[in-house]
Amino acid sequence: MFADRLDRTRSLMAEQGVDVLMLSVGADLPYFCGYEAMPLERLTMLVVPRDGAATLVVPRMEAARVVERPEVFAMRPWDETEDPTDIVAGLAGSAAVAAVGDHMWSRFLVELMGAMPDASWRRGSDVTAPIRSVKTADEIERLRAAGAAVDRIAGRLQRGEIELVGRTEAEVSAELGRQIVAEGHDRVNFAIVAAGANAASPHHEAGRHVITGGEVVLCDFGGTMVGDDGVGYCSDITRCVYTAEPPAEFRELYDVLFEAQAAGVAAATVGTPAQDVDRAARSVIASAGYGEYFIHRTGHGIGTEEHEDPYIVEGNREPLAAGNAFSVEPGIYVPGRWGARLEDIVVASPDGPDPLNRVDHRLAVVT
Amino acid sequence: MFADRLDRTRSLMAEQGVDVLMLSVGADLPYFCGYEAMPLERLTMLVVPRDGAATLVVPRMEAARVVERPEVFAMRPWDETEDPTDIVAGLAGSAAVAAVGDHMWSRFLVELMGAMPDASWRRGSDVTAPIRSVKTADEIERLRAAGAAVDRIAGRLQRGEIELVGRTEAEVSAELGRQIVAEGHDRVNFAIVAAGANAASPHHEAGRHVITGGEVVLCDFGGTMVGDDGVGYCSDITRCVYTAEPPAEFRELYDVLFEAQAAGVAAATVGTPAQDVDRAARSVIASAGYGEYFIHRTGHGIGTEEHEDPYIVEGNREPLAAGNAFSVEPGIYVPGRWGARLEDIVVASPDGPDPLNRVDHRLAVVT
Repeated sequence: MFADRLDRTRSLMAEQGVDVLMLSVGADLPYFCGYEAMPLERLTMLVVPRDGAATLVVPRMEAARVVERPEVFAMRPWDETEDPTDIVAGLAGSAAVAAVGDHMWSRFLVELMGAMPDASWRRGSDVTAPIRSVKTADEIERLRAAGAAVDRIAGRLQRGEIELVGRTEAEVSAELGRQIVAEGHDRVNFAIVAAGANAASPHHEAGRHVITGGEVVLCDFGGTMVGDDGVGYCSDITRCVYTAEPPAEFRELYDVLFEAQAAGVAAATVGTPAQDVDRAARSVIASAGYGEYFIHRTGHGIGTEEHEDPYIVEGNREPLAAGNAFSVEPGIYVPGRWGARLEDIVVASPDGPDPLNRVDHRLAVVT
Repeated sequence: MFADRLDRTRSLMAEQGVDVLMLSVGADLPYFCGYEAMPLERLTMLVVPRDGAATLVVPRMEAARVVERPEVFAMRPWDETEDPTDIVAGLAGSAAVAAVGDHMWSRFLVELMGAMPDASWRRGSDVTAPIRSVKTADEIERLRAAGAAVDRIAGRLQRGEIELVGRTEAEVSAELGRQIVAEGHDRVNFAIVAAGANAASPHHEAGRHVITGGEVVLCDFGGTMVGDDGVGYCSDITRCVYTAEPPAEFRELYDVLFEAQAAGVAAATVGTPAQDVDRAARSVIASAGYGEYFIHRTGHGIGTEEHEDPYIVEGNREPLAAGNAFSVEPGIYVPGRWGARLEDIVVASPDGPDPLNRVDHRLAVVT
């Protein structure tokens, strides 16, 4: 599997004239070799020449953490008094065009620019995203399992089995985090809990606000499930509940959101430009007069990383491919008052949109 | 405070010929403006021209999370269909030398290189580390509070109040994480629990191994305490316990480690080259015949970031300055058998080394 992924990437490198690919922290490394680098100042780097064997440059003290796969990569542990930049530059040889992992720390790129002064630099995602964004059947099943896990948590939220009123957002967030792990994830990526007016801030950080009766509570949460091969896949879901019978005005807002999200999902067919999914959701919201309150794109790809290609945003004319997995998550945010978002992960399949989240999409009232 | 930090950085920029500083994810941004960027694909960037006002470029949907400080920075929210790279390049103007935050994603640096083709690039830490690594009295007290918090947890570990035998490393790690938060940290940075032969891997990931009687259990843990100003300071401590009376051979190893760590702390005086602290600890271990088993540097700086300048490593001839805060953490790792590490955070003060961790340094036996 890893060797096949690298082979397909090498083909793209040849097409795009990239001589060497260098991958460090983030989701690329587990995807291509089953090892996740520690996000620290000691450089870990998988060096993939277009026409040569891959080498994992790794701090010696972390080498014991690596599951060795000699058929995929050689190991080059480095000692504390060595300069890993020199080692990487040596492995890159005379590469004229180098692509670096999107999440690699800029500090290492600046150092590599010094060690390889004649190279020109590209984003690693130029050659990795076309591979990573098309999921295999196995990857879709892993995403489906992660989606089913957060569906179970959302179901408990909707049935009132997760206490809200009287707890702080931060306490509910911690509770969601515990359930994310209990449902089989290896780590929590985020657990946004935003109540009342806080729900108008799409990336609100769960805080000290004590949830009261008669508020919307927006919960957006997900984690990563790591398989035996060291590769993890992400979940991501948003549901809203109301801690009393909601005012008619909020019901109206939510009905628009519900319809917009369904329209986005329905538009997510193979061959549709990504921006058309955004437009499908956005036009419902705009027609209902809420256009100014939908202040973000409709979605993002998901896989080994919580946000990756394809992005479901105006301007992305790339047609959806079979195997693309992404969120469809419109929102309506009225500053100072309230907000709502509704999110599923959807796979574009030959049989049409395949939502990985199936739990109730209606606004649940929990009292 | 923020304005003063930026002013001092601008002086260093002038000395080093840096025209603009660009800071994104990581600890720089909270340190200089009290805001922590979300580590996502939407660019957040504090643009600091040497001779002009600073501007925070931030995704509009995250702008509500920012505590505005007009005396420190202007805000430039960007919309989903704008290109933040162009905005940043526009703010940088005709800068010939740009320094970028060490942790900024390389993807953004590659994009900026396209938008500013004539600029040359430096590491942000070249101008930020000399400021960040010298802690003020207030910063030292915040580090001391974080250190006292993990000392309390280590004390419970040493008194046998944290159950070990029969639990997995991962369960103990989760328990340490809960206590890190309960003791006042806002987040857990890491909680390494490595038992028996796993203790020979310095960055072992707490796993499914069930701790038994008669094993060393190495615990290395810390978190970040965030103040009301949005700036967080880190703790980091390592203590080992043995789940039975240890064999004489392990006692001998630990006695050497104990002596080496004390020698490192004693050497950590103002004006001493950083590498001499490493040498002081290492020579004790080497003299006792364990030199080949001490496979990492002696320590790292700590502050708003868990690892930062100064690094206590052979080759770092920089003299310690009053206000430097760093770990002193020698270790002895015998592959396949066992290992131990002993770590305090120490401040180089005019009155001599000031350890922020005071909990017992001896090997505790818990049965």
